[in-house]
Amino acid sequence: MLSKVRIVGSGLIGTSIALGLVQRGVSIQMIDASTSAQSLATDLVGGVEVVDPELVIFALPTSRLPMVIASEFELNPHSTFMDVGSVKGEVALQIETFPGLKTRFVPTHPMAGREIGGAGSARADLFQGRSWILTPNPELLQSSKNLVVEVITTLGATPIELSPSDHDRAVAKISHLPQIASSLLAKQLINTPAEWMELAGQGLRDTTRIAGSDESLWKEIIHSNRVELRPLLINLQNDLEAMINALDDPATIAELIASGRQGKAAIPGKHGGVAREYSYLPIVIDDKPGQLGSIFNECAAMNVNVEDLIIEHSPGQLSALITLALSQTDAEKLFTHLTSIGWNVHPIRK
Amino acid sequence: MLSKVRIVGSGLIGTSIALGLVQRGVSIQMIDASTSAQSLATDLVGGVEVVDPELVIFALPTSRLPMVIASEFELNPHSTFMDVGSVKGEVALQIETFPGLKTRFVPTHPMAGREIGGAGSARADLFQGRSWILTPNPELLQSSKNLVVEVITTLGATPIELSPSDHDRAVAKISHLPQIASSLLAKQLINTPAEWMELAGQGLRDTTRIAGSDESLWKEIIHSNRVELRPLLINLQNDLEAMINALDDPATIAELIASGRQGKAAIPGKHGGVAREYSYLPIVIDDKPGQLGSIFNECAAMNVNVEDLIIEHSPGQLSALITLALSQTDAEKLFTHLTSIGWNVHPIRK
Repeated sequence: MLSKVRIVGSGLIGTSIALGLVQRGVSIQMIDASTSAQSLATDLVGGVEVVDPELVIFALPTSRLPMVIASEFELNPHSTFMDVGSVKGEVALQIETFPGLKTRFVPTHPMAGREIGGAGSARADLFQGRSWILTPNPELLQSSKNLVVEVITTLGATPIELSPSDHDRAVAKISHLPQIASSLLAKQLINTPAEWMELAGQGLRDTTRIAGSDESLWKEIIHSNRVELRPLLINLQNDLEAMINALDDPATIAELIASGRQGKAAIPGKHGGVAREYSYLPIVIDDKPGQLGSIFNECAAMNVNVEDLIIEHSPGQLSALITLALSQTDAEKLFTHLTSIGWNVHPIRK
Repeated sequence: MLSKVRIVGSGLIGTSIALGLVQRGVSIQMIDASTSAQSLATDLVGGVEVVDPELVIFALPTSRLPMVIASEFELNPHSTFMDVGSVKGEVALQIETFPGLKTRFVPTHPMAGREIGGAGSARADLFQGRSWILTPNPELLQSSKNLVVEVITTLGATPIELSPSDHDRAVAKISHLPQIASSLLAKQLINTPAEWMELAGQGLRDTTRIAGSDESLWKEIIHSNRVELRPLLINLQNDLEAMINALDDPATIAELIASGRQGKAAIPGKHGGVAREYSYLPIVIDDKPGQLGSIFNECAAMNVNVEDLIIEHSPGQLSALITLALSQTDAEKLFTHLTSIGWNVHPIRK
């Protein structure tokens, strides 16, 4: 069982890991180049001094790894090491320069984060239900891998093994490319008349949500993964050019939009595994406290599990439209029940 | 008061308008080039034969307007006319060819829709809380404009006046450009290994949600608004090229990502008007019926209004993380209250 962990880096990720492990009785020492950051994180997690930790976690930008890796390796000659950086090819190269480290260093990447950084934003539940990728090299000791898998599962995440290059190609496509597309789309909104912006719907909000992310974090991620990103960006650029050239040609426009629908269909559902299809039940309620509670009480009474919920307010009106995502069976059961007791329920949508 | 309406076009929009108006006692006649579509919509809305309608609504693609406008104008010489197309410049040009029509034709565009078309998907509440744009010409009769505004407000939408060119420029930027960006981004996902797709997070889901839209609808919208779209697409292309050229230059990457954050900040909050800042209260609950109801009952007891709600499930676990969007005051009140009665509440986030 894991009992002593040293965490180098007292930001969002390092402190969140610490909060989760401390809850399980692990002794943690927080380290940071900034003494104030180290002090804040130590207070938040109840950090202590730890000698001979089983595990040292590098929770800092990959660009700062070279500044600490040699001294930490020397200081903790028997420990297992892991990092949490967003790009893994570079880390694999760095490890190569330290003979003996390869057997005890596990490069990892938790698929979790927040727009706001710092120890103050840390949450013990940050990794709950998320994927956490490991990119172990063939020489890694099984005992070191087991230790890291134990940390990941203890924090509520699911360990997934990939090669460093597969990892970097995968996140380039499913995470870094969407970030760039969202940011560049949102950039086009600068200096748009306010009365036009009033017309913005959910589509614009959804497509630009992640454009609110922090540029100091993303400049490093994008720069580090530039080799994998470049061909993806060029493909996107070619498709954008194809759309511009097709503006006079509705058939080609339709092909491009249809291809987008095909690509979207490849995204699995929220729960992982096969994409889940929900049924949607729209209910018009008074926009005041108590209404939502009453509906959820009816759900509980009918043993109906709400998978998701969308609330749409009507500006200047006293009603709101809430839409419950449910299994088809639950949707039918709830529709009949709520209708029978007088709620304003609309037909189920797929 | 409006009493008789003729709706030409029995798809999603036409039938949804009919459903909303029938509820207010308006007599509706549904018309469609397809007799089966006309019959289905008539059944759904309880359509009747209407003579001398006060209002004729063209609820069909703008490309089909020329096929019906002359005969409808001749058939209903005293009626007011409105259309509901997504692009307004073309309609303004078409009206010019019918002397006498300008005083009684109101081009409009409801900012509402669904990914699924057809009368079967129609909903009386489709327009609740949405904006509905009018692009009246200077010769329009006040009585005709009043009639259309009455329809819009009756359906729960908010009428907004714009010039046809402002409308087309506005929707190009806030609706058509995001659709194209989302579709082309999603297109890049085709043939991605399934195990990579398993890593997809909320960012990818949000940025590609509208890529599920119907290409037959969008090919017409994009083609019709190509004049306004072209410069916007070229700007986006230039920014994409700037990002590709900046991949070796973290400072320029940061500038581009920061510009995206600036653009995103221009989007107003859900309620319209000034963008609203919510505080977010994360609560870990058991993932079973009854928990959400209990929380909302506490909200009601404390007179706390929930503005929005995010539910995150943890695959394979028995807990879920729900995050309530609240005013700062309500968030603080609820945090103290829920904590005092033993809920697993995490610190408020901005």
